[in-house]
Amino acid sequence: MKMFLSDNNSGVHPRILESISNSNIGHEPSYGEDKYTEKANELFKEVFQADVAVYFVTNGTAANIVGLSGLLKPFEAVICTDTAHINVDECGALERFGGNKILYVPNRDGKLVIDDIKGFLNSIGDEHQVQPRVISISQITELGTIYTIEEIKELADFAHTNNMFLHVDGARISNAVVALNSSFKEMITDTGVDLLSFGGTKNGMMIGEAIVSFNKELSKNFKYIRKQGMQLLSKMRFISAQFIPYLEEDIWKENAINSNNMSKYLKEELEILPGVEIMNKSLGNILFVKIPKGWNRPLQEEFPVYLINEKENIIRLVTSFDTTVEDIESFINYIKKLSSVH
Amino acid sequence: MKMFLSDNNSGVHPRILESISNSNIGHEPSYGEDKYTEKANELFKEVFQADVAVYFVTNGTAANIVGLSGLLKPFEAVICTDTAHINVDECGALERFGGNKILYVPNRDGKLVIDDIKGFLNSIGDEHQVQPRVISISQITELGTIYTIEEIKELADFAHTNNMFLHVDGARISNAVVALNSSFKEMITDTGVDLLSFGGTKNGMMIGEAIVSFNKELSKNFKYIRKQGMQLLSKMRFISAQFIPYLEEDIWKENAINSNNMSKYLKEELEILPGVEIMNKSLGNILFVKIPKGWNRPLQEEFPVYLINEKENIIRLVTSFDTTVEDIESFINYIKKLSSVH
Amino acid sequence: MKMFLSDNNSGVHPRILESISNSNIGHEPSYGEDKYTEKANELFKEVFQADVAVYFVTNGTAANIVGLSGLLKPFEAVICTDTAHINVDECGALERFGGNKILYVPNRDGKLVIDDIKGFLNSIGDEHQVQPRVISISQITELGTIYTIEEIKELADFAHTNNMFLHVDGARISNAVVALNSSFKEMITDTGVDLLSFGGTKNGMMIGEAIVSFNKELSKNFKYIRKQGMQLLSKMRFISAQFIPYLEEDIWKENAINSNNMSKYLKEELEILPGVEIMNKSLGNILFVKIPKGWNRPLQEEFPVYLINEKENIIRLVTSFDTTVEDIESFINYIKKLSSVH
Amino acid sequence: MKMFLSDNNSGVHPRILESISNSNIGHEPSYGEDKYTEKANELFKEVFQADVAVYFVTNGTAANIVGLSGLLKPFEAVICTDTAHINVDECGALERFGGNKILYVPNRDGKLVIDDIKGFLNSIGDEHQVQPRVISISQITELGTIYTIEEIKELADFAHTNNMFLHVDGARISNAVVALNSSFKEMITDTGVDLLSFGGTKNGMMIGEAIVSFNKELSKNFKYIRKQGMQLLSKMRFISAQFIPYLEEDIWKENAINSNNMSKYLKEELEILPGVEIMNKSLGNILFVKIPKGWNRPLQEEFPVYLINEKENIIRLVTSFDTTVEDIESFINYIKKLSSVH
Repeated sequence: MKMFLSDNNSGVHPRILESISNSNIGHEPSYGEDKYTEKANELFKEVFQADVAVYFVTNGTAANIVGLSGLLKPFEAVICTDTAHINVDECGALERFGGNKILYVPNRDGKLVIDDIKGFLNSIGDEHQVQPRVISISQITELGTIYTIEEIKELADFAHTNNMFLHVDGARISNAVVALNSSFKEMITDTGVDLLSFGGTKNGMMIGEAIVSFNKELSKNFKYIRKQGMQLLSKMRFISAQFIPYLEEDIWKENAINSNNMSKYLKEELEILPGVEIMNKSLGNILFVKIPKGWNRPLQEEFPVYLINEKENIIRLVTSFDTTVEDIESFINYIKKLSSVH
Repeated sequence: MKMFLSDNNSGVHPRILESISNSNIGHEPSYGEDKYTEKANELFKEVFQADVAVYFVTNGTAANIVGLSGLLKPFEAVICTDTAHINVDECGALERFGGNKILYVPNRDGKLVIDDIKGFLNSIGDEHQVQPRVISISQITELGTIYTIEEIKELADFAHTNNMFLHVDGARISNAVVALNSSFKEMITDTGVDLLSFGGTKNGMMIGEAIVSFNKELSKNFKYIRKQGMQLLSKMRFISAQFIPYLEEDIWKENAINSNNMSKYLKEELEILPGVEIMNKSLGNILFVKIPKGWNRPLQEEFPVYLINEKENIIRLVTSFDTTVEDIESFINYIKKLSSVH
Repeated sequence: MKMFLSDNNSGVHPRILESISNSNIGHEPSYGEDKYTEKANELFKEVFQADVAVYFVTNGTAANIVGLSGLLKPFEAVICTDTAHINVDECGALERFGGNKILYVPNRDGKLVIDDIKGFLNSIGDEHQVQPRVISISQITELGTIYTIEEIKELADFAHTNNMFLHVDGARISNAVVALNSSFKEMITDTGVDLLSFGGTKNGMMIGEAIVSFNKELSKNFKYIRKQGMQLLSKMRFISAQFIPYLEEDIWKENAINSNNMSKYLKEELEILPGVEIMNKSLGNILFVKIPKGWNRPLQEEFPVYLINEKENIIRLVTSFDTTVEDIESFINYIKKLSSVH
Repeated sequence: MKMFLSDNNSGVHPRILESISNSNIGHEPSYGEDKYTEKANELFKEVFQADVAVYFVTNGTAANIVGLSGLLKPFEAVICTDTAHINVDECGALERFGGNKILYVPNRDGKLVIDDIKGFLNSIGDEHQVQPRVISISQITELGTIYTIEEIKELADFAHTNNMFLHVDGARISNAVVALNSSFKEMITDTGVDLLSFGGTKNGMMIGEAIVSFNKELSKNFKYIRKQGMQLLSKMRFISAQFIPYLEEDIWKENAINSNNMSKYLKEELEILPGVEIMNKSLGNILFVKIPKGWNRPLQEEFPVYLINEKENIIRLVTSFDTTVEDIESFINYIKKLSSVH
């Protein structure tokens, strides 16, 4: 049975697992000097249509922290929303590893808006205050919303005008690209993003995260920071080998289309039920749904869900690359049963 | 063709790869709440015959740093040899992540001896100096030598007598256990080791490192430190699934026996050659070999090796779980050819 | 001419300077082993009527950061207001030196209220999130308001009930004690404060800040942290010698009475002027005053003030231990002149 | 009675104390915007005959750590001797605040020699290892020896040739300049030193340390690092005011001449005594002296000294700016008494 707790609960897409197996031949240079890593690097350049520098790491937190700390001096700060993963879900990794302050502001529908950033510009040059240097957004956001291409471009322009960089936490970047019927190039390269945490794990990879830098001068020291950040894998080929079919055979797209579609289907089925309210404008694979309090207990027993807001009784439902119509239907059927009883 | 550059160049043992595949079924709770992790944890308790707390991480550096920084306050220090992996091969990870000083002393045949530690005891209580708190040794050492059970016990006793802990960097712990015809219990649990970095990657796993704590009170906060150290994997089951056959089916032993035996064979074949000198008392899978300078260029072309000491022209040869008699023989044949020409 | 920019702009009270001179006799043990430090430590025990441990440092930032980082493990966090000095005026010192996250919430009239802290309790035990461990308040607050004795006691009780500590940033603690007609014992010791940054510099000392710990077990390692935090002075006697008359001769009280009284006088004179609005409920020595925009330029030329809110045109006026009735009157006269012209 | 424990035990030169008093007039801008700081900055430019950037801090550890961490990225390292103050006497401040590794090598008579540095050049470009970036020497050294002008120049040239910087820990820089009959310009500016920790406290100041940067581009962010490092004093004028007579009236020279001369006199008196052996080639104010073990107890009772090497029974004797001929004579007389008895 598939759950809707998180796309992290899913396994690995069969063609990616196959690629891992196929790379298990003889000896290969370690630490990323192997031919699979070389190939994967080339594929990143192709899909982004840019001469990017790519650093594979083992999870999304590492992609964010190694990358951000690489952009920041210890007295410089990153600006993000209060709900940003780097702010609430990484156990203070940036503060500890980078020594950097995170300047968080209230989110607007999950997003960061320029008006909320402007106040920090007053700190520039004042030795008593951390210096704002990176704007970080999550695409798709932690609240399931999606920045438009224009919004990203405006943030990048604002950042560059003010001597800052734009970082995108793309743990679910494929879902965003698919939802907006866009491309990695159009959404990231062309908007002027400086640094991307490219997530694959939540979208059908086993361990697949990459730091993608659009400014090689800026990231020239990332190799040291990755190692110092305990993120340099010896048998790197087994990460790289996953990215090859993921990018070359468009598994990223195939998987994201499915999870987005399943989320849409789930939404359509839920929003017609009495007592149920969809709380976010999701186009991706994350729904926030208000349900009657009486459903909580039976639901947790049968279909464990993440009760994200106890007061309002809002649950989070995440679909995955392997979610099927049948998974949705058994969930909806169960919900309907609850609906008739409670 | 197999190389002797490092045991990191090898791939994954087929039964371990199979276990990964077999765990790729449906959804599982993420971040280590899955059934594979539970099983793997139990197996660690069995092989060590102790109620250990186990934390899976993605590489040896992470096992060392998350564990050590968990034992240390920022003003406390770890004592090790100048050649220790934590001292020279981790790009200053402990200094950065933990803020801790590493007090290194000259190695004696790769080992740390108590007489070289005693001087640091004078610092205890002196606010001007870091406080020595952990003794860290590598088993097998970076120079391929192996601590005896008695030596480990003495170091542990010395540590405990002086209010310190003993940490073992066990990147190649299986090779040591096999070489001494010992057991994990006898070598680690019974000697009083407090914390072990248990390495599997160099011995046939894909990504398989574990922090093994013998003092649950001491490691009660390790879960936060692992997350803050960017080492908590979402799809943890794919790490845990590797440890199951590794421990349950004694793949650790099978693999270490092979690499040790191959190293022994390599040594026997090399030491009878004129101009060749075995430099270390290896019982494990690492040889340091002095060769004539004239061999360097042709050897690097055919059989890339790690020239570890340019002045003395010493190379390092590491055998792996998958090294075969044929691999040794083709290497030796090539060496013999060189020997006849240069 | 005295300014109202900050109490930092004032000099040193003559009796404190005299005490420095008087301690300049011959040789004394360094690093705080001298007789002046011993005496000052005793005086702290007297005025707080508690067996406190005292650590002298060189500024308020140091008192906050050495103390807080001493209470916190790197994955633990401090909760404070958005306006807290540790959050906005210390250039990210806690994040860098301690690696700790600061969880800031909107202030309520400069204060932290328990309802705004409760949300963080949900993080306890969750490895993905920093663990809340210290509640930090400023007395008097950065907005010039003052916590009542009852409010401090409630915060301390709430902290202790939830396995947390209460820290008070007392850069202007003397002004608070005087304003509430209280005592150090009643305001700090009896309410259950765990750690106090005791400020003297803003109240007539030259360099006079002390970390006062009410829990010796908790602060037993502070001596190492102070040294590692670059705050151990060799000629410590010249700091300690300042604290002796400050505490023994009640210079702290004499000075705070004057600055509070001068602030009150300033307020009375200002609030009757047309176009002027007092923005805070100050009982101490800090006023926030809304003035007509037209006054900005001439005021900055004659009496430089800190324009703290450009949009609302609010200035901050701080009185000092050495502010005189004449200083207030010449300022008010000038304001009246402006008032008649603009 | 004056002791020979450390030059830190001395007090403040009367003209420096007078300058502090004289600067205690009215209000001054805080945090170094005052006129005394401006004047002191100008004086530094004069004595070094260079357009230096100067940052006042409160102790020698702070001067070293704020400066060094300003030159280093966290994965970069500093090379020094095993006896360097930054390595053994700062409680791991650089490791914690900067996250930097210290690469220490055995000292040669207290000094760092180029041959011992060369090995670290092999690490350059290797992501597994910290990158050597700063060479740090102490002048005079912790063993009382003094680098010649030529030695400093060679170290600076070697550093620059290898893309590194040269830092001088000048806690006792005035004693060195006087001993070699040199000048700050000749010893520091002209040799190519990049960064100097300029020490005044041990030479008659109260709290007087300065970071002197010879490369403004390199130190442009030091103001943030000083604040983040808790070293920005609000009432800065009282530090700056000390430097004015120190530099303008050559108190630095007057004081260093006295302590050096007293050390020389002490040496001459000691070396003729039976059973006494001078252990270092001191030209400055630090002597290491081997004495008979029987003297320890009576000496500690009458003239506490620092027993620096218990095994060899070597004591350290430091003379100060205020040491008098009478101080030496009473010490020598006492020693002679001991000599006759034990």
